Amino acid sequence: MFLVGSGPGDPELLTRKAWRLLTDADFVLHDSLVDDALLDQLPASVEVVDVGKRPPDRTSQADINDMLVDLARDGAAVVRLKGGDPHVFGRGGEEAQHLAAADVPFEVVPGVSSAVGAPGVAGIPLTHRDCASSVTVVTGHETPDKDESALDWDALADTVVSGGTLVVLMGVRRLSNNVAALRDHGVPAETPVAMVQKATWRDERTVSGTLATIEAEKEAAGIEPPAVTVVGNVVDVRADTRELLDR
Amino acid sequence: MFLVGSGPGDPELLTRKAWRLLTDADFVLHDSLVDDALLDQLPASVEVVDVGKRPPDRTSQADINDMLVDLARDGAAVVRLKGGDPHVFGRGGEEAQHLAAADVPFEVVPGVSSAVGAPGVAGIPLTHRDCASSVTVVTGHETPDKDESALDWDALADTVVSGGTLVVLMGVRRLSNNVAALRDHGVPAETPVAMVQKATWRDERTVSGTLATIEAEKEAAGIEPPAVTVVGNVVDVRADTRELLDR
Repeated sequence: MFLVGSGPGDPELLTRKAWRLLTDADFVLHDSLVDDALLDQLPASVEVVDVGKRPPDRTSQADINDMLVDLARDGAAVVRLKGGDPHVFGRGGEEAQHLAAADVPFEVVPGVSSAVGAPGVAGIPLTHRDCASSVTVVTGHETPDKDESALDWDALADTVVSGGTLVVLMGVRRLSNNVAALRDHGVPAETPVAMVQKATWRDERTVSGTLATIEAEKEAAGIEPPAVTVVGNVVDVRADTRELLDR
Repeated sequence: MFLVGSGPGDPELLTRKAWRLLTDADFVLHDSLVDDALLDQLPASVEVVDVGKRPPDRTSQADINDMLVDLARDGAAVVRLKGGDPHVFGRGGEEAQHLAAADVPFEVVPGVSSAVGAPGVAGIPLTHRDCASSVTVVTGHETPDKDESALDWDALADTVVSGGTLVVLMGVRRLSNNVAALRDHGVPAETPVAMVQKATWRDERTVSGTLATIEAEKEAAGIEPPAVTVVGNVVDVRADTRELLDR
């Protein structure tokens, strides 16, 4: 059993190991952030199962856990394929715990996290010797049954104010709330912000602005989920390089 | 010109795109965190240049920048290969700015950051629905000419106390300082900590403990750089799964 990250979207950003495991697999169970362009490249011998969590055909996490254990016990070669990396907001830890509790041996194959890859291809480094000594990644799409206070916005705001980079995954729908939370906790309105939509997919698009303007920029450009939001001075590096950046 | 991440070490954790570019390259300029096992797999047609920054044969960043521009202007196919991801403490942003200022077109090819991949293969998820809603990455190896206060330890400590994960890259030599900084800023002594040495290389090793015990654990195990340190409750997930984890 392999818990595998597929990277941000482009099938060529799979690791060589992930590709070997996928082409040798009996079953591939993938979520909704894995691109069809990748799945279409798999050999016909691979049974591809979409367990992506879009209502109304939602497969519950409990059902996914059970499927993984059942297939492994049948002796099948199984790849659980997740967008980005399985351990960065991918619930890979939960699935690993479930497999371990059921005595199923497994291996984790890391992938290029969208938190890193999406800003990267758009010309935004997450750290920079001149302007960013830390990077913090959060999700803007908290689960409905989870207390929103799980995020310490005071600490997040302090990180940005002291020159760190903040990356928000899946934060398109909650952009206004997140901008307001940062502003309320003292992050200046002129702090640079960028949103990278569907990085490395066919419909990749990047908009940038500041905390004061990003909501209007997002609306004007019609940015849709999934997108990665970056807050911090590193966003300005893109302005220095974008004319030479091959996108 | 391609700024490419090589992943945490295992040559199979290169992306397929990185592998294609490397095998087609005229020149590969790599740093010291790229494994020989990977470089040994390159075709003989590729000129491999070690610009790894180990004294006394240190190649300055300015010299590397100049080499990249000169080779690109000569029309060579050049890959600048960095350990992990080029934009996570890899100085890829600086090199990108230098290339852009010299009118050299370039592309960024993200890689699996060691910040994600090292804990991942060791069974430590960076986030977990039950216990970690954010992950912050810093480097423990600040440049000598940089004011140490570049890191806001107060904000970092608050992040850990409120349940976030902290990842410290290259922090073996400064472990004592970093542990003291977290303790001084209010992080409890019993907070779980793990160190993953040379993840996915032949000499991978993981030790775990708490903020109170990790220095002794590190000494007892003889952990050497490079290693990735993880602070937070996610470290305990490893205890649940390690017997079934295929390492």
